[in-house]
Amino acid sequence: MAEKGITVKKNENFSEWYTQVIQKAELADYTGVSGCIVFRPYYYAVWEKIMDLVNARIKKYSVKNAYFPLFIPESLLIKEEEHVEGFAPEVAWVTHAGKTKLNEKLAIRPTSEAIMYDSFSKWIRSWRDLPLKINQWSNVVRWEFKHPVPFLRTREFLFNEGHTVFATEKESLKEQDWVIEMYRYICEDYLGIYSMIGRKTEKEKFAGAVFSVSLEHFMPNGKAIQGPIFHHDGQKFAKAYDVTFLNKNEKKEYAWQNTWAISSRMLGVLIYSHGDDKGLVLPPKVAPNKCVLVPILIKGKEKNVLKKCKDLNRNLKKFDCIFDDSDYSAGWKFNQWEMKGVPVRIEVGPKDVEKKQVVLVRRDTGEKLFVKESEMVKKIEELLLDIQNNLYKRSKKMALDNMVDVKDTKELKKAIKDKKLAKAFWCGDQGCEEMMKDQTGGAKILNMPLNQPKKFGKCVYCGKDGKHLAYIAKSY
Amino acid sequence: MAEKGITVKKNENFSEWYTQVIQKAELADYTGVSGCIVFRPYYYAVWEKIMDLVNARIKKYSVKNAYFPLFIPESLLIKEEEHVEGFAPEVAWVTHAGKTKLNEKLAIRPTSEAIMYDSFSKWIRSWRDLPLKINQWSNVVRWEFKHPVPFLRTREFLFNEGHTVFATEKESLKEQDWVIEMYRYICEDYLGIYSMIGRKTEKEKFAGAVFSVSLEHFMPNGKAIQGPIFHHDGQKFAKAYDVTFLNKNEKKEYAWQNTWAISSRMLGVLIYSHGDDKGLVLPPKVAPNKCVLVPILIKGKEKNVLKKCKDLNRNLKKFDCIFDDSDYSAGWKFNQWEMKGVPVRIEVGPKDVEKKQVVLVRRDTGEKLFVKESEMVKKIEELLLDIQNNLYKRSKKMALDNMVDVKDTKELKKAIKDKKLAKAFWCGDQGCEEMMKDQTGGAKILNMPLNQPKKFGKCVYCGKDGKHLAYIAKSY
Repeated sequence: MAEKGITVKKNENFSEWYTQVIQKAELADYTGVSGCIVFRPYYYAVWEKIMDLVNARIKKYSVKNAYFPLFIPESLLIKEEEHVEGFAPEVAWVTHAGKTKLNEKLAIRPTSEAIMYDSFSKWIRSWRDLPLKINQWSNVVRWEFKHPVPFLRTREFLFNEGHTVFATEKESLKEQDWVIEMYRYICEDYLGIYSMIGRKTEKEKFAGAVFSVSLEHFMPNGKAIQGPIFHHDGQKFAKAYDVTFLNKNEKKEYAWQNTWAISSRMLGVLIYSHGDDKGLVLPPKVAPNKCVLVPILIKGKEKNVLKKCKDLNRNLKKFDCIFDDSDYSAGWKFNQWEMKGVPVRIEVGPKDVEKKQVVLVRRDTGEKLFVKESEMVKKIEELLLDIQNNLYKRSKKMALDNMVDVKDTKELKKAIKDKKLAKAFWCGDQGCEEMMKDQTGGAKILNMPLNQPKKFGKCVYCGKDGKHLAYIAKSY
Repeated sequence: MAEKGITVKKNENFSEWYTQVIQKAELADYTGVSGCIVFRPYYYAVWEKIMDLVNARIKKYSVKNAYFPLFIPESLLIKEEEHVEGFAPEVAWVTHAGKTKLNEKLAIRPTSEAIMYDSFSKWIRSWRDLPLKINQWSNVVRWEFKHPVPFLRTREFLFNEGHTVFATEKESLKEQDWVIEMYRYICEDYLGIYSMIGRKTEKEKFAGAVFSVSLEHFMPNGKAIQGPIFHHDGQKFAKAYDVTFLNKNEKKEYAWQNTWAISSRMLGVLIYSHGDDKGLVLPPKVAPNKCVLVPILIKGKEKNVLKKCKDLNRNLKKFDCIFDDSDYSAGWKFNQWEMKGVPVRIEVGPKDVEKKQVVLVRRDTGEKLFVKESEMVKKIEELLLDIQNNLYKRSKKMALDNMVDVKDTKELKKAIKDKKLAKAFWCGDQGCEEMMKDQTGGAKILNMPLNQPKKFGKCVYCGKDGKHLAYIAKSY
């Protein structure tokens, strides 16, 4: 158990605050390998919840889970040019087994297109075998050389990889809707994180895709983070990996493919989004324990209080309530469970026993409520719902409050300097995109909202006719 | 879809039979990396079922899932001597990231003791932090140089790793009971595979453990396979990785540890145990689809039959029934779904529609039953139960029928030559153990049943007083 609460404020030293929350709330642990973290049980449970949500939803759409090897032979990885160029600098290579040098070095998957599509190419023969819809829960390795940040930028991370194959472009494009809605529902309705949904630019799209649609999340420190993503690959990988099928006329055609993913980086986005000076704040729907029951023990009156707590606890099972009857002080326990983000605290002291009441404390607002014992369960249910909604509302408000329409480079620079999220028109030229980045010290186009306006203003950089409305911010 | 049925008989060419079942029933696929296979969706679902069973059971015993890194720095791996000696020859090493050579080479986990216990050492401070019970679902790599066999001996495989830490030896030893019972229940009650439970010899125990208790399974080809296992580590790892705690008297003590695992090799054991000349046979409790509905279409009468099948199918959802209305012939479908091991086939032809009946065919025995439509669901339920029991009974009978009590080397050699499972007394001397192996061309002591007799005969090799009853067979 951690010994002290968080000692810095979120808005004063964001990065130190984050490090403390992660360690003191026992969410992650550093290891001997830089950039590789331990997902500790309490927080890994949130990832398991995300897995459950994805598994339930993909089942509805007939996507099946499978498992492909961790290793990709070099010769296979390099088949799709753009793809390998995107990943080559970050690939971890296995060169030896025991003391034996391998004939061909093996990539640890940075993602599984190469190894999966090699199999798909064998599996798919005719239109009868399509669509083929596979999902995999993977650990992947991308050896980034930037400063690692637990959950947000780790060299090994966890994700789902949906890989689907269709006979027609139309069908493949249609898939975007339910996939994006699944991710929106997880991010917004469960994790309570406001999501900006839009198409990535050519420059920022996935290496090898035709286009990518992302969910982007704006953080209280003025930076955005890319969340889950959908890639339409067209026939690009099909051509590289020979994923073909015989159509109803017995003619060979290349298949159409998509890939989509949500990663463990969302666990970092969650901390950033909701955490406060006391530590983590968990949305009830994903909290492993929705409440904690703390007896207030005063000498001579322990017995009654503990007995009452035991009775009450029987009705709290469905909240996976923690009954903390350890021998730490009540104050220590309050800090501890606040730090770990438990949505509701239930306090019971001798006076409460007398009055047949309990005290409920909301983690999100700190509000304290005195509630009759008989109404406890109902009230907790209401509170959980309200906390869930409140966290999302806050997250959305924070993002919208920080959105600034900018018309020219000067305004853009100011917005970025002020740690805002800029909304601007863009002509679509990659030169302008790069200059924006230069001028702002690294802000980039996050994505271009799916709902584009009917009329466009002038390009924020060159002043020519705009073709896209774009979100621009610094990004992790 | 596979094109032809299995073309060899299980008892004539076991290894070719296995290869065909795996490929034609679409259970696994080979890849460009020797010894690394694809777990295809239909069969990966059985692994998911095993995961669910373990997850549900460990939750009852307050074991929590977590995730530790794939990479273990060399310096960490070598801390426990016996452990590293056991694994060193099989470790896959990462030496480069992109084009950069790493300062220290990184092992891909062959198992996670080293990386986990390094963290445990930091997490555990006092007796209050114990017991600590962690489980992880891992992909691990052991670069065996023997001939790989899909599922049974692969270089990457999947397993659960339970890693538990206790304050006292007594508590740690007590854990064995529920862990072994969990594995027995999965192997016998779900997978239908008879299990011989016993302690491994010093020679065969896990590298670094004090003792190991295994479930061993005897296969129809006369070889045994080690299934799930429980290791009691005593304080050996605690001493190597400094896993200590302050006891109630504020004195530092080394903790007591266990580890336990069930691996994806059970998917191979399952095929070996139940498969027949037609292909895979799945126990109903783990079959992703418990039945398949095949319409028998005769020209001019298709409409009635298809309509009837659609109606019937509504009541078959709870069996995850496949309604195969594809345009393949009925005969092709029969072969296909038999090959994939679906427990019950439902046939409906024009005559059945007239008579308001269906035909049910058991996969395990091939028995055909004519059943009234109105009794279909109830009868299928009965059949599934019966198939489940029958498969286990068969597996147990096969093992027991092949068990031979042997008294001396001559009998032992004969038993092994006849592909039997020998039961023999052993004096406990490692020299005798090694000589048995020599004399029999490789048979080894699988384990020593937990229920040992009260009196022991003479050692099968040296003729001195026996101290253990042991199972001896060739083993994968």
